[in-house]
Amino acid sequence: MAKRIGKYTILMQNYPTIKGFAATCGKKEAEGPLGKWFDKIFEDTTLEESSWEKAESRLQTETVKILLKKCNMEASDINYIFAGDLLNQCMSSAFGLRSLDIPFLGQFGACSTMAQSLFLAATSIEAGIAQYSIAVTSSHYCSSERQFRFPLQYGGQRTPTAQWTVTGAGAILVSQQEIGPKVKYCTIGRITDLGIKDSNNMGAAMAPSAAKTLLTFFEDTKTSPENYDLILTGDLGEVGTSLLKQLLKKEGIELKENYNDCGLMIYYKEKQDVHAGGSGCGCSASILCSHILNKVKEKELKNILFIATGALMSPTSAQQGETIPGVAHLINIVAD
Amino acid sequence: MAKRIGKYTILMQNYPTIKGFAATCGKKEAEGPLGKWFDKIFEDTTLEESSWEKAESRLQTETVKILLKKCNMEASDINYIFAGDLLNQCMSSAFGLRSLDIPFLGQFGACSTMAQSLFLAATSIEAGIAQYSIAVTSSHYCSSERQFRFPLQYGGQRTPTAQWTVTGAGAILVSQQEIGPKVKYCTIGRITDLGIKDSNNMGAAMAPSAAKTLLTFFEDTKTSPENYDLILTGDLGEVGTSLLKQLLKKEGIELKENYNDCGLMIYYKEKQDVHAGGSGCGCSASILCSHILNKVKEKELKNILFIATGALMSPTSAQQGETIPGVAHLINIVAD
Repeated sequence: MAKRIGKYTILMQNYPTIKGFAATCGKKEAEGPLGKWFDKIFEDTTLEESSWEKAESRLQTETVKILLKKCNMEASDINYIFAGDLLNQCMSSAFGLRSLDIPFLGQFGACSTMAQSLFLAATSIEAGIAQYSIAVTSSHYCSSERQFRFPLQYGGQRTPTAQWTVTGAGAILVSQQEIGPKVKYCTIGRITDLGIKDSNNMGAAMAPSAAKTLLTFFEDTKTSPENYDLILTGDLGEVGTSLLKQLLKKEGIELKENYNDCGLMIYYKEKQDVHAGGSGCGCSASILCSHILNKVKEKELKNILFIATGALMSPTSAQQGETIPGVAHLINIVAD
Repeated sequence: MAKRIGKYTILMQNYPTIKGFAATCGKKEAEGPLGKWFDKIFEDTTLEESSWEKAESRLQTETVKILLKKCNMEASDINYIFAGDLLNQCMSSAFGLRSLDIPFLGQFGACSTMAQSLFLAATSIEAGIAQYSIAVTSSHYCSSERQFRFPLQYGGQRTPTAQWTVTGAGAILVSQQEIGPKVKYCTIGRITDLGIKDSNNMGAAMAPSAAKTLLTFFEDTKTSPENYDLILTGDLGEVGTSLLKQLLKKEGIELKENYNDCGLMIYYKEKQDVHAGGSGCGCSASILCSHILNKVKEKELKNILFIATGALMSPTSAQQGETIPGVAHLINIVAD
C-alpha cells in the first residue's frame, strides 16, 4: 500500500517499474535537436491515412506496437491501457487502440495526460490489480489545428505566444518490481484558474498550475529543486516557463540549470519557427519516452521530476467567454 | 493488494466502501418512475446558467456538493476526484469541479464513465493512495443534442432507435473500509466494434461490448446470472437490451427478471416519448446513485452487477465514415 506524504503527495511502496518506453514523431520533430532519440519517425505525417484524426490514431497504434516489441510482449499480456488525447471524445485513443483488445480506460487531462496516465498505470501496479499496464498519449499538429484553431488550408497567422502542437506519441509499460526506472512520488494537481482567456497563450494559462503542483510537492516531501537531477515541465513554452520561474521566485524557490521544458526542447528555436515552443499531449510524452527515459535507464539522470501541464479548455468554452483552467501532475522517476 | 481472478477480473481485497452517493436530475427525469429517489431536481434545466454547457457543469458542482453534505465532509477531505462527461474536452467536469480544489483526474469512457470512475476511485482506496475518493459524471439533453446531433431550435426528427440523453448527474464517495455497500469484483472492458455505423442507434453499437464484458465476468468468476439480485446495464435502451439478450443466449446465458437497463427505467415508455429509452453518462450514474444504491444500502439488494456501456464515437469520426466502437465496464457491488 502506498503511503501519503503531506497533504497531496503519495509515495509508492512497491515502486512500479518502467519496463519499457517508446516514442514516435513526425518530420518536423525529427528535424529538432532530439530527433535521433525517437523510435520511429513518420516523414509522411498522414501516416497514409485519409484524415488527420485517423493519422493521429495510427500514431498511437504504432507507438504501442513498438513498445510491446521493445518489451518482447504481446498485447494480450497487458492488463490495462490508460490512454488519452486532445481530440473530441478522445478519438485517437479509442480508434487507435480498439484493435488491441486490451482493457481500456480513456483519460482526459489535456496536455497533462502523460503524467495522469502514468500515475494511474503505476497505481494499478501498486494496487495489485495489474501486472502490466500501459500509459499512452498522442497529439498531431494538423488534427489539433483543425479542431482548436483553423483548418490548415485557411493559412491563419499565429501570434507570438502561440505554441506548435507536436506530432508525436509516447507510451510506457509499467510492471511489478523489476529492473528499470521506478515511479516513486506522485502529486496529482488541482485545477487552477487565474482568469487567462487567450487561447493562443496556453503557457500563461498552465504556468500557475505547474507552480502550485511543484510548491505542493516540495512542501509535502520537504525537498527543494537542488535535490533533483532534472525538473521537466510538459509544454509551458517560452511564456509559460518564464511565468513559472517568476511565480516560484515569489515563494522563495529558484529554478536553475536543472530545469527544462519539453516545449522548449523539441524544436530549434531559431530554425524551426514555432513561436513560443512545442505543445500538445505528444510533446511531453514523446520527449519523456525517448531522450529522458533513456538517460534515466542509463543512470545519467537518477532522480527526476516530470510535471505535465494541461489547459482544460475547449473551443466551445472559449467561445462562451470562459477562462482557461489549468492542471499539472507531477511524477518523480528514479533510476534503479 | 487486489487479486486477479481469471484473465480480466479483479477482486478487491480491502473492499472499498461506498460511504455516500448523490444524484440530481432535470424536470423530465423527475417525472419518470424513479423521480422521487433523486436528491435534487432542477425544474429549470438551464440551472440559471447562460449556456447548456454551463448548466451541465453546474449539475456536477451541485451533485458533488450534495454528496459532501450527505457524507458530512468537506471538499478538502477528498484525495482525488475522478470525473468525466460526454462534452468535448470533458468540459462539464473541468469547469464544474474547478472551484472545489480537489486533485482532479479527468475520465473519458463515453456513457461507461460512471463504472470507469467508480473503478478508479475504488482502486485508489485499494492501492492506499487515497482515504476518500469521489467518482462523478453527468450528461445534459440540451448540451448533448447540440454537440452530437442538432441544435434544439432546429427541431430535428428523431429515429425510433434514438435514445434520449438524460439530464442528470451521479456521484459516489468511496472510502476505506467502513459500514456501507462495497465494491467487490470489477471487470474492465475491451473495446468492441462489430461495425455499427448508425449514430442514432447507440444501443446496437454498445450491446456487443456489454455481452463481452458480462461473458468475461461470468467465466472469470465461475458465476451465472442467478447468482445476482440485479444485473443492471447502463443505457442500452430497447434495441440494445434486446440485442444483449440475443447475444448472451447464443452463448447459453439467459437474462431473466433480475436483468434491467437504466435507459429503460428512467422514463415512462408510453407517456414520455423517448423512443428507445434514456442514455448518456448521467443515465446510469443518476439511477445507480439514487434508487439502486439506496436499495443496496437498505439490503433489499445484496449483490448486484452494474455494467455501464459507452459508445466511443464523436461527430467527427461519424462524419469520416467510421464505425462506432463500444466499451462496457462491470462493477460488482455487495451490501455490507
